[in-house]
Amino acid sequence: MAFINNETLNVFKQKANQLVNRTFDKHINLAVTGLSRSGKTAFITSFVNQLVNENSQSKLDFFNVIHQGRFIAAKRVPQKSLHVPRFAYEKSLSAFTQTPPTWPEPTHGISELRLAIRYQPEDSLLKYATDSVTLYVDITDYPGEWLLDLPMLNQTFEEWSDATNLLLTQTIRRDKAQPFLDKINQLDPFEAVDEDKLAELSAEYTELLLHFRHQLGLSVIQPGRFILPGDLQDAPILQFFPYTNFNNIDIDQYQNADDNSLIGMLRARYIEYKERVVKTFYKEHFVNFDRQIILADCLTSLNSGPESFKDLQHALNLIMESFNYGKSGIFTRLFSPKIDKLLFAATKADHVTPEQHEQLTTLLNQLVHQTQHQLSFDEIQMATLAIASVKSTKSGVGEHQGRKIPVIQGRRVGDDKLITLFPGTVPNKIPHQEFWQNKTFNYVSFAPLDAVAENQALPHLRMDQVLEFLLGDKIK
Amino acid sequence: MAFINNETLNVFKQKANQLVNRTFDKHINLAVTGLSRSGKTAFITSFVNQLVNENSQSKLDFFNVIHQGRFIAAKRVPQKSLHVPRFAYEKSLSAFTQTPPTWPEPTHGISELRLAIRYQPEDSLLKYATDSVTLYVDITDYPGEWLLDLPMLNQTFEEWSDATNLLLTQTIRRDKAQPFLDKINQLDPFEAVDEDKLAELSAEYTELLLHFRHQLGLSVIQPGRFILPGDLQDAPILQFFPYTNFNNIDIDQYQNADDNSLIGMLRARYIEYKERVVKTFYKEHFVNFDRQIILADCLTSLNSGPESFKDLQHALNLIMESFNYGKSGIFTRLFSPKIDKLLFAATKADHVTPEQHEQLTTLLNQLVHQTQHQLSFDEIQMATLAIASVKSTKSGVGEHQGRKIPVIQGRRVGDDKLITLFPGTVPNKIPHQEFWQNKTFNYVSFAPLDAVAENQALPHLRMDQVLEFLLGDKIK
Repeated sequence: MAFINNETLNVFKQKANQLVNRTFDKHINLAVTGLSRSGKTAFITSFVNQLVNENSQSKLDFFNVIHQGRFIAAKRVPQKSLHVPRFAYEKSLSAFTQTPPTWPEPTHGISELRLAIRYQPEDSLLKYATDSVTLYVDITDYPGEWLLDLPMLNQTFEEWSDATNLLLTQTIRRDKAQPFLDKINQLDPFEAVDEDKLAELSAEYTELLLHFRHQLGLSVIQPGRFILPGDLQDAPILQFFPYTNFNNIDIDQYQNADDNSLIGMLRARYIEYKERVVKTFYKEHFVNFDRQIILADCLTSLNSGPESFKDLQHALNLIMESFNYGKSGIFTRLFSPKIDKLLFAATKADHVTPEQHEQLTTLLNQLVHQTQHQLSFDEIQMATLAIASVKSTKSGVGEHQGRKIPVIQGRRVGDDKLITLFPGTVPNKIPHQEFWQNKTFNYVSFAPLDAVAENQALPHLRMDQVLEFLLGDKIK
Repeated sequence: MAFINNETLNVFKQKANQLVNRTFDKHINLAVTGLSRSGKTAFITSFVNQLVNENSQSKLDFFNVIHQGRFIAAKRVPQKSLHVPRFAYEKSLSAFTQTPPTWPEPTHGISELRLAIRYQPEDSLLKYATDSVTLYVDITDYPGEWLLDLPMLNQTFEEWSDATNLLLTQTIRRDKAQPFLDKINQLDPFEAVDEDKLAELSAEYTELLLHFRHQLGLSVIQPGRFILPGDLQDAPILQFFPYTNFNNIDIDQYQNADDNSLIGMLRARYIEYKERVVKTFYKEHFVNFDRQIILADCLTSLNSGPESFKDLQHALNLIMESFNYGKSGIFTRLFSPKIDKLLFAATKADHVTPEQHEQLTTLLNQLVHQTQHQLSFDEIQMATLAIASVKSTKSGVGEHQGRKIPVIQGRRVGDDKLITLFPGTVPNKIPHQEFWQNKTFNYVSFAPLDAVAENQALPHLRMDQVLEFLLGDKIK
């Protein structure tokens, strides 16, 4: 058989091997979300970084494929959706490699990244058939605000307006919202609409939402797209607002109002928003997700006080509806989501002392499992973890009034000063008035501690447990 | 019949009248485009302004419905496409009403505006049936660059690359493009692709396009979406570039290259761009247009020299393909456009002396009717006009070396100085070498002359002829 030389034969072997491998290759769509500033960009950057830089010094003991020595390598490969922005991994990583390191710029809207993870199977069938298998992980990063919109699908314009009115008249929002509410309540809802006036009032409502989010640190922002409009900037579909005076108008007249009346146009745009913005996200993206991680920054909310914390609670509640397939008529009617694992992660766990992590996890667990709709997620396996995507503090022991106490040390955001402190205890259940009165908690924002080399794994807390929960069963 | 009082009867009459009117109401989709800086925003602002402020002082004699006294009123009404940004009429108009007036900010991407024009019909049938009829005009504003992409639909990646290579090696582009071309020509097209490198080179190619457009004043920019990406910013679909070394590679190997090779990925993204970006515009917008006006700034190109002028010629040629239904296989295969009137307008006619307008019109006419594809537009009625959407100069007579010559006077952009000059003669055909050598033309940019009141009609040149050509037959 002189016709086939060794080189050719090797190529054949290689091709045959590739073919076999492809047959066993696996694929998973992993969605990452969180309300803005919950740390999505740092999370994805660290997630990728841990895998592509995996080596003997890695600290991923709880990720079984690594613990068992079956992990071969991971790398970023081209994504399939060419029209979705690529997650800016290199750029985000460079925030951690520069001196001094900083937190990466937040992402806007949606972005994607595909990882190929090669490993040796332990699975008895695969083990004898092939040396290595590749798991493809498509990571989609999207704003958690988009999930806050889901409940709108079940609400009429009237119902949504009433719910939003309730929100706007809560103590924490009322001060800032009152001038807007006064204007709305003085409108004649049945007058012929003036589109420019409507655009102006919508801009004012959007300003309110931005203030709630960025100045007051609140979480419940509806409609979510108003604060990140993208190409829909200045489109009528983003120019509406809640009508807050339903109690004082004739409902029959409202039902019969046509689209050229002020209230008719508000209603028409609300309906179009649901159809074209909310549903589109669920149909084009959400239904494809296999697994979801939701990041929540409980500490900042605890720090901001009871109203802000209650708002986070409310937001998590609204977000949960997207995973409550059984109860939500929307899903059975419109979509068939297939998420089978859902992870809630309390981020920035490195900002409290280590013995507080369990309390932080318990607290998030309570937030998630609270409330009226005691979810029964038959199809979904859930977990809660306290994590730090990129660890920015060192923990140790200090002394306070002669007693040894646990402390953390980090570089404070703002003045860059290295400080050592005990930020206080995290309540292990949803705190009552007493907690807020005593104010035993004082959380400080830290910058990343030391710059890392580009091929070095970032320091973290429990990213290995995150990996194991989200990917472990697919990588056996 | 005491049961029906006068008020009720009037309401009945009114309702009956409304019902009849609606039956006779008409509708037209008018598209406005032009390469960037051709004056689209000023044009639409003036178009709307002339109609909504129509009164006894208006200067719209050539618009028959007004000349005949049948025009009643016009106003902006809500548009139908709620997801398309609203054209910022108020904001643009305010540029002309402030002191000193300026040109409005240019638009980005697509926007819409709907006008309702009420008039008395002269049509014999309508005349006896109703007092007034409404013509609804949906104006869509979109970048002319989007039309430059159409020819790509008929080109393979190889053909497009070769054509673009030719463009990049033209005298005017070569200097700036050479470093980019050198890099591309040194690439191994069959190597495994590095997406980050590809993103980097695409960014460099986009920089080139922006330089050609804004620094060199060139018109042929492909792919058009690269310079106005919107939500597609950072998406792989906008991360490709021409491969400029096809002459030196094995075409069989190219044909067989898979998507993970550098050239394979370039090709895949080029194909996806055509499918998802180019075709989508034609399918969602272009097919709905009834009439089109294309604005061209010939004077700036004449001023910039022969290369820039030749480039405008080339761009108009590419644009014409979108209206050449008969010859273009793309349309018969994919779309059924229905445009029946096409107006080419040479903008900024007020920047030359009045006796030059005819030459300017003739010149544009030649540009449009030039070239290989001597279009036979069976279905499309075409016209050419020299216009000023908002007139920014006064014309008069001056003296030069003892001879009386025509002059214009205006406020020069930059130093705001009031200057009087004769900018030179406009060639009445595509200029030859001699014209460029003698350089008898020196065009100066003028700012709007005097602020207008908000309800005052803007000064203009031939906007009435524009209105008559685009709307006249629908408003009889």
